[in-house]
Amino acid sequence: MKIAILNVGNEVVEGDVLNSNAKYLSEKIFNLGHTVMFHSVCRDRESEIKEFLEFLSPKVDFLILTGGLGPTKDDMTKEVLSRYLDVELIKNAIVLENIKEKFKKFNRVMTENNIKQSYVIKGAKILFNEKGTAPGFLLEKEKCSYVLLPGPPREMRYLFEKYIYEYLKDRIDNHYINSKIIKISGLGESYVESNIVDLINNNKIYIATYASLGEVKVKISSNNEDELKKARKIIIDRFRDNIVSFTMEENSKAVTRYLVDNNISISTAESCTGGLLASEIVDNSGVSKIFKGSYVTYSNEMKTDVLDVKNETLDEYGAVSSEVAKEMLNGLNEKMNTDIAVAITGIAGPNGGSIDKPVGLVYIALKIFDSNYIIKNNFRGNRTEIRNRTCKKVFNVISQKIIIDKLL
Amino acid sequence: MKIAILNVGNEVVEGDVLNSNAKYLSEKIFNLGHTVMFHSVCRDRESEIKEFLEFLSPKVDFLILTGGLGPTKDDMTKEVLSRYLDVELIKNAIVLENIKEKFKKFNRVMTENNIKQSYVIKGAKILFNEKGTAPGFLLEKEKCSYVLLPGPPREMRYLFEKYIYEYLKDRIDNHYINSKIIKISGLGESYVESNIVDLINNNKIYIATYASLGEVKVKISSNNEDELKKARKIIIDRFRDNIVSFTMEENSKAVTRYLVDNNISISTAESCTGGLLASEIVDNSGVSKIFKGSYVTYSNEMKTDVLDVKNETLDEYGAVSSEVAKEMLNGLNEKMNTDIAVAITGIAGPNGGSIDKPVGLVYIALKIFDSNYIIKNNFRGNRTEIRNRTCKKVFNVISQKIIIDKLL
Repeated sequence: MKIAILNVGNEVVEGDVLNSNAKYLSEKIFNLGHTVMFHSVCRDRESEIKEFLEFLSPKVDFLILTGGLGPTKDDMTKEVLSRYLDVELIKNAIVLENIKEKFKKFNRVMTENNIKQSYVIKGAKILFNEKGTAPGFLLEKEKCSYVLLPGPPREMRYLFEKYIYEYLKDRIDNHYINSKIIKISGLGESYVESNIVDLINNNKIYIATYASLGEVKVKISSNNEDELKKARKIIIDRFRDNIVSFTMEENSKAVTRYLVDNNISISTAESCTGGLLASEIVDNSGVSKIFKGSYVTYSNEMKTDVLDVKNETLDEYGAVSSEVAKEMLNGLNEKMNTDIAVAITGIAGPNGGSIDKPVGLVYIALKIFDSNYIIKNNFRGNRTEIRNRTCKKVFNVISQKIIIDKLL
Repeated sequence: MKIAILNVGNEVVEGDVLNSNAKYLSEKIFNLGHTVMFHSVCRDRESEIKEFLEFLSPKVDFLILTGGLGPTKDDMTKEVLSRYLDVELIKNAIVLENIKEKFKKFNRVMTENNIKQSYVIKGAKILFNEKGTAPGFLLEKEKCSYVLLPGPPREMRYLFEKYIYEYLKDRIDNHYINSKIIKISGLGESYVESNIVDLINNNKIYIATYASLGEVKVKISSNNEDELKKARKIIIDRFRDNIVSFTMEENSKAVTRYLVDNNISISTAESCTGGLLASEIVDNSGVSKIFKGSYVTYSNEMKTDVLDVKNETLDEYGAVSSEVAKEMLNGLNEKMNTDIAVAITGIAGPNGGSIDKPVGLVYIALKIFDSNYIIKNNFRGNRTEIRNRTCKKVFNVISQKIIIDKLL
């Protein structure tokens, strides 16, 4: 099906929040095999919501609206859609009861404005919301069907997963398009593309490349399984040494899951990343069996006190040096003795750089079982980007050294 | 001016990336005092880009397009806009020279497909791109003017800040709308709203509330300075004990900046947050003078070894208990002796919860100068949300205890 997403809410249009709902829905729906054509965002204004309904409805089979189902005066998505389609809103006793119960459960006082959430669209399936007070709706129509979901991401996701995902899965187009991902690290997007021009010009497959923070993702899509496989193999052969994964998923997730599944322990000693690497590991469930902890040794003092980095080494080479990275790694190994150990020291900027040691210079010392690596990096970007690139690099190296071969 | 943003790119529509460009631009533009009306996202397809140009152009004074300026076959935003407006594209020698230099500088091989980036829109101001190979454009037209910016966020931001921000600042509407933010923690959105109904019904001001992860942000907008001040004061009086800031900015940023400016040192001992709190501190520049480091004591073993938490305390009360939080804090104080010390232990889930100690139970032990606090929390949400809520809470409490009074 052709699908569009319309998010209603001043907070998105005014830049107060990221439109994570659109990303979440698109990713799920696209991966099912449907075509997501558009995202649009408009304010909580009747005339503007209506204009988008008029613009988008004739172009798609299915329109998902999020936001504007709350109790406040501004929330009007349900009301505008019902007027646009000329269907009634009717008070629903079960929904009202649910709302009352929810307020009881969370020990909050129910206010008059919550009652409008108990009105439902006539003829629509009610999507009962266990996570909040606003129900969602699925209204099937001959040409374009509509789904209304609340704006708060956890409520939206809950209702989508409970009611809509399977519904869409049952309605996948016959011309299902399959796709394969190849994630490449350390090469530029135009370099990658110019080396697969033959594949780009092959009209049996569709190739897209996306670049972000030192990675290029190549997405090959086709409804011809053989062509897809052939293209994937060609790309793997051409970029073998730079391939770091075969999914869009962040390697922080994929690699940590691999470590958990294979019982490979890890610990970190971090300076410029300041705990970000540890935090990305801990963000995955089940890590307690492979992750004991980390030392965030941001100051020189803590590097010497805790990791036994020598004062002479700091004096002679500076905190950002391969020598200090090595000693941090040794100190970490001494203390933690994990299968994988990572020590990081670098200059995240914006201050502190010099000609010899510019902002973005980051040393990663890495022990993976019996092998040791020192990786010198010159990362581009601002402070946040340099710190993110550093962590990405660690997961990518681990993937290249112990995981990627098993996925070929 | 009325402004819309159109992002072109399959990677956004297909859910591969978040639309951070739209958020960034909206936030900057809205805060200047312009009206951002719409975001839209479409694929790299001529017909679809054209449909959005036709739909959006008559509705706004200024349309910002991002994405599709790259070297690849799919990149066609510039070409489609020039055909839509019936203006020529002409090869530009300076831009071509810039592109060549950039390839030299980054030691990359320039490929044939990069040459198309040297074509410029006739009559448009060229926005020379120091951060990448695609120039941007500003094309002034009588009714709706157009800006084209490249998709990669760092290039887009660079060009926006260098060329467009001041341009838009000089064109702020006469009916400039000012706004004030009040961020409230620990109360529900509908509770907050029902307690300011009188203000919501005051038609000299416009009030919007946004809820996310335990916080409600109230935004008061008005072109009447007195009414704005009056409303702000009323809200402050009504929610005094729950106010944690007066900006949309994350408190992780605002509070850390305050600590840096006032030379207040901080250290952390983290279990379930796994270094996230330290990482949020380190994400700010200038922290080296107030942040020495942190201990990510994820395992019980590391809690006892490093922070001297007693085995008996762990056995009697469990790792997630106020007693262990206190001992972690003591151990941290012993080692780091900073003005502020934070120890965190909790159950981030999805596993590990029980009836007595459900997922979301998090103890925060906090020393702020001479005062000690133990805060027991029952956070809702998934693993990532619980970890984020925990860090938010820490910054909010620090703000309430030592910062907010100074901002009233």
